[in-house]
Amino acid sequence: MPDAKLLEVFESPTESAFVIEHIAEEFTSVCPKTGHPDFGEVTLRYQPRPANAGGTCVELKSLKLYYHSFRSEGIFYEAVTNQIRDDLVALMDPAWLQIITNWRGRGGIRSVIRADYGDIPAHFRGR
Amino acid sequence: MPDAKLLEVFESPTESAFVIEHIAEEFTSVCPKTGHPDFGEVTLRYQPRPANAGGTCVELKSLKLYYHSFRSEGIFYEAVTNQIRDDLVALMDPAWLQIITNWRGRGGIRSVIRADYGDIPAHFRGR
Amino acid sequence: MPDAKLLEVFESPTESAFVIEHIAEEFTSVCPKTGHPDFGEVTLRYQPRPANAGGTCVELKSLKLYYHSFRSEGIFYEAVTNQIRDDLVALMDPAWLQIITNWRGRGGIRSVIRADYGDIPAHFRGR
Amino acid sequence: MPDAKLLEVFESPTESAFVIEHIAEEFTSVCPKTGHPDFGEVTLRYQPRPANAGGTCVELKSLKLYYHSFRSEGIFYEAVTNQIRDDLVALMDPAWLQIITNWRGRGGIRSVIRADYGDIPAHFRGR
Amino acid sequence: MPDAKLLEVFESPTESAFVIEHIAEEFTSVCPKTGHPDFGEVTLRYQPRPANAGGTCVELKSLKLYYHSFRSEGIFYEAVTNQIRDDLVALMDPAWLQIITNWRGRGGIRSVIRADYGDIPAHFRGR
Amino acid sequence: MPDAKLLEVFESPTESAFVIEHIAEEFTSVCPKTGHPDFGEVTLRYQPRPANAGGTCVELKSLKLYYHSFRSEGIFYEAVTNQIRDDLVALMDPAWLQIITNWRGRGGIRSVIRADYGDIPAHFRGR
Amino acid sequence: MPDAKLLEVFESPTESAFVIEHIAEEFTSVCPKTGHPDFGEVTLRYQPRPANAGGTCVELKSLKLYYHSFRSEGIFYEAVTNQIRDDLVALMDPAWLQIITNWRGRGGIRSVIRADYGDIPAHFRGR
Amino acid sequence: MPDAKLLEVFESPTESAFVIEHIAEEFTSVCPKTGHPDFGEVTLRYQPRPANAGGTCVELKSLKLYYHSFRSEGIFYEAVTNQIRDDLVALMDPAWLQIITNWRGRGGIRSVIRADYGDIPAHFRGR
Amino acid sequence: MPDAKLLEVFESPTESAFVIEHIAEEFTSVCPKTGHPDFGEVTLRYQPRPANAGGTCVELKSLKLYYHSFRSEGIFYEAVTNQIRDDLVALMDPAWLQIITNWRGRGGIRSVIRADYGDIPAHFRGR
Amino acid sequence: MPDAKLLEVFESPTESAFVIEHIAEEFTSVCPKTGHPDFGEVTLRYQPRPANAGGTCVELKSLKLYYHSFRSEGIFYEAVTNQIRDDLVALMDPAWLQIITNWRGRGGIRSVIRADYGDIPAHFRGR
Repeated sequence: MPDAKLLEVFESPTESAFVIEHIAEEFTSVCPKTGHPDFGEVTLRYQPRPANAGGTCVELKSLKLYYHSFRSEGIFYEAVTNQIRDDLVALMDPAWLQIITNWRGRGGIRSVIRADYGDIPAHFRGR
Repeated sequence: MPDAKLLEVFESPTESAFVIEHIAEEFTSVCPKTGHPDFGEVTLRYQPRPANAGGTCVELKSLKLYYHSFRSEGIFYEAVTNQIRDDLVALMDPAWLQIITNWRGRGGIRSVIRADYGDIPAHFRGR
Repeated sequence: MPDAKLLEVFESPTESAFVIEHIAEEFTSVCPKTGHPDFGEVTLRYQPRPANAGGTCVELKSLKLYYHSFRSEGIFYEAVTNQIRDDLVALMDPAWLQIITNWRGRGGIRSVIRADYGDIPAHFRGR
Repeated sequence: MPDAKLLEVFESPTESAFVIEHIAEEFTSVCPKTGHPDFGEVTLRYQPRPANAGGTCVELKSLKLYYHSFRSEGIFYEAVTNQIRDDLVALMDPAWLQIITNWRGRGGIRSVIRADYGDIPAHFRGR
Repeated sequence: MPDAKLLEVFESPTESAFVIEHIAEEFTSVCPKTGHPDFGEVTLRYQPRPANAGGTCVELKSLKLYYHSFRSEGIFYEAVTNQIRDDLVALMDPAWLQIITNWRGRGGIRSVIRADYGDIPAHFRGR
Repeated sequence: MPDAKLLEVFESPTESAFVIEHIAEEFTSVCPKTGHPDFGEVTLRYQPRPANAGGTCVELKSLKLYYHSFRSEGIFYEAVTNQIRDDLVALMDPAWLQIITNWRGRGGIRSVIRADYGDIPAHFRGR
Repeated sequence: MPDAKLLEVFESPTESAFVIEHIAEEFTSVCPKTGHPDFGEVTLRYQPRPANAGGTCVELKSLKLYYHSFRSEGIFYEAVTNQIRDDLVALMDPAWLQIITNWRGRGGIRSVIRADYGDIPAHFRGR
Repeated sequence: MPDAKLLEVFESPTESAFVIEHIAEEFTSVCPKTGHPDFGEVTLRYQPRPANAGGTCVELKSLKLYYHSFRSEGIFYEAVTNQIRDDLVALMDPAWLQIITNWRGRGGIRSVIRADYGDIPAHFRGR
Repeated sequence: MPDAKLLEVFESPTESAFVIEHIAEEFTSVCPKTGHPDFGEVTLRYQPRPANAGGTCVELKSLKLYYHSFRSEGIFYEAVTNQIRDDLVALMDPAWLQIITNWRGRGGIRSVIRADYGDIPAHFRGR
Repeated sequence: MPDAKLLEVFESPTESAFVIEHIAEEFTSVCPKTGHPDFGEVTLRYQPRPANAGGTCVELKSLKLYYHSFRSEGIFYEAVTNQIRDDLVALMDPAWLQIITNWRGRGGIRSVIRADYGDIPAHFRGR
């Protein structure tokens, strides 16, 4: 089941503002209603706080293992998206952060869920 | 015929603002003039009110059945789009909502109809 | 329900061998098990007999109406494909004929069904 | 030759603001200089006035016939674009309207011409 | 109306066998039934006879003008294809020749018509 | 774990030869070496025996559940492919059958495994 | 060598503001350092002044010949872009104008150079 | 002007049969009729003779310079193709060789010319 | 190892503001943790200061060699991006500058890192 | 430098004939003439001997490390291709084997090299 303790960070390598985006193309969880698997893509985009303000970045392999921990979890699209947002915000306390989940669909309807934290720059909103 | 009573909701899972998009790739209705079938894609995008403000989300399977209820209906592109917008706004009372219908075309002209409700954030307008 | 009497022919315009292909991108029928709509693309490919051998071609608008007659029919992929093949062979008695149905899929599995009649030239087999 | 009298309207189906886009993929006219045919795509995008303000929408089949009336006309890209804009504005008196013509090109140069009427919302400008 | 006298040839530049393919992406004629324009792509593929056997090639600009001569002609897909094949065979007496017309479609059905002359090499059949 | 008893069949609907292809785009199993998930697409293509020879077809929903039974299984690409081939041949005793697994890759290498049964027609080999 | 005297204009056909874009997909010049040819695409986008303010448009064939005049010229990407911008501004005195050159690359690096004149509308900047 | 003396070879590195393909995406010459530039892609595919039979391969940079030597040459599509074939056959005396030129087109018609030498394996013919 | 001394500049060719973008599609470095190679695309976008303000542009071949100097370097995505930004800012003192690194991914996650310098115009932010 | 001793095998999992394809999208070596890096994609396709005939398969991670061992090697396209073919044939003694290297190109020419071993089935030749 989803386990935020799998997540690890490293210190931000710079005082400058910069933006990190990780796109996980092979996310899978389970529909709690039907028991059928769901497949989607999870995009994380965020700006770490500067190094001298205690800024941290999520370590890539730990992020992968964290995503894997949803594999047998019965959970709705909306809840997956909000939970990942909350876990990563709690982990890194970033300047801002976005989660976009893009689901391959069932029964002819595919879905995209977007959850934000903080003041997203105008040019990243809705992307 | 179109039946808004097929629609069901569930309570929004969070106090945070987030955005839901459902893309139905296989919508079909009937041209009231010629009796020929029309085929298109219907995109619904909206922001539910927060859970503590009574916010709700449309349930995905009920949305599919609602769309199916247009299958034998003779109705113009523009009316389909406005009716879906009105039915879903009445159902959920969302913060804002968009309907975009994208029709495969007849006689060499394809069409896109966009109907909005509420104050659409700048980055979602016209998309 | 499917109605082969909608189909009309016209006389083949030539003594020479030639090949006609009609791709209907917006075919829809109903799953007899679940009652949900199925969506797919139907390709008809055939060689009419020469004009002086009584060769005929299916008239395009009548073909469209014939396809529309499946719209409310509960029928499996395999049966749709075989029925269209049989109806068109009975109509035109062509030199050879192929039907390929390509379905958009349900639950993550999409399907392609191929049914042939007569001696398909090597370069059209399996296409 | 281009004939605006072919155009017909119907009353806007709603009091709400909404946006209609018709993309004609197969427009053709004739170059007045060389006599060679030009081929392009014509996009019409507009917001009708509300029904209670006398708002109207162009009827789709009449639009197609109007476009066909350019088929034998010797006329430059720029003039086609401005004339369609003027004819449709005169017809519907819309809130705003855009015409974009996208030409397949001759001699290695393809062209896009954009003509607007009224106050185009920021998110549709230049599209 | 279609005018084969517009076609011109030049002598094949070589004794060796080689293959020429011209793809005209912007062909248009008129449906004789509805009077509506048809749009398609016409591919000509052929092997000229060797120069020392009197082999000739169709001149490219004359081919373009010949195609333009169908612009106002009411003629079915099948007849267009067979006529172009016959006119070009009569013009060049090639080793072999193929005409493939690929039509953009009307009412949701698009069509491909293939007419051959002579002994088409196996690797070009059905292409 | 993989469970062939989930598979069900129905009787072939015709005496004629025809070909069925099911493409499952969202297959997942687990690498037995690293414990990391593998993701791929599984294509099944086969010709059922005729109805009067006891021919059967695999039922689509049972096929989906059978594929889901690999979700937690530690198994190599090659073994997945051969096991699915063997299970489906044992189930249906088809005229011929192909399994193609197409894996999204790890560490910059993606893989395709093909396993056949019976005498595959020339035009389907290696596809 | 580049020759701005090849350029010709015609009077703007309208008092209304509109935007013209010409995309030349086959531009070539020569690298002054290595003598090797460079290949790229040149986009010109501009708004002519209104007709009654003396507005003019560049004639399309003269633009093509002007571009051809760079064919044997040894000139850097940056200089090509700035020179075309300057020549066309001098020719037409437009309301605003953009030149974008998009080079196919050498040694694994491809380049895009953008030069503007006047007050580019926000929705065209950086495009 | 085209200069076969620019071409250089190196000895085939192996006794085994293997196949080399070089795709030059940026070929340009001049139309001898209009003086306008032509742009295309030239594909060379061949099998060198084995090293112990005196087999040689064309050196890549020399091939590029040879292609550049057509830059100012007035020459038809068909002649370019046959000349390149003849020059490279004379240079390398390969087991077999193919030249395919794919031209971007003028006036709405694009062209592909194929010239072969020797006994092309069935799976490379017409490609 | 990364060597900023490889970088060379030339004087900006104009007093006007313009924007240069170089996209290196074949960047490679080494993961410091696993020793495995990383592959990505590096985009540099910047506006040089005007010539009369001492503005300079990075020379393209020197940029390529500088990128090659990362080939054997063990360095994280984030550090690569920030170091390239810092080295190029130090070299050119541009009006503004962006570095975007787009990595092909490992273990199903691909990444994009963006680092900016100066006041990026709104239309280039986040691109 | 290239090191075939990095390669490991495992026993073929079946007595049946089947085909394995591994596509390495991120291969890099060094041009021995210029010292510049080359980038390409390496496809290995082969049929292992049956298990009871001592058939083996190359282990995927060892293949990756073997490919990495070319990273600093100065070696021509043709030699890379033949060496990989020879090393893998020596390792596995397969029924048949193909290597296809697809290089991204330098100076506008990209290349594909194909080297085979044994009797390649007709449907895989030239692919």
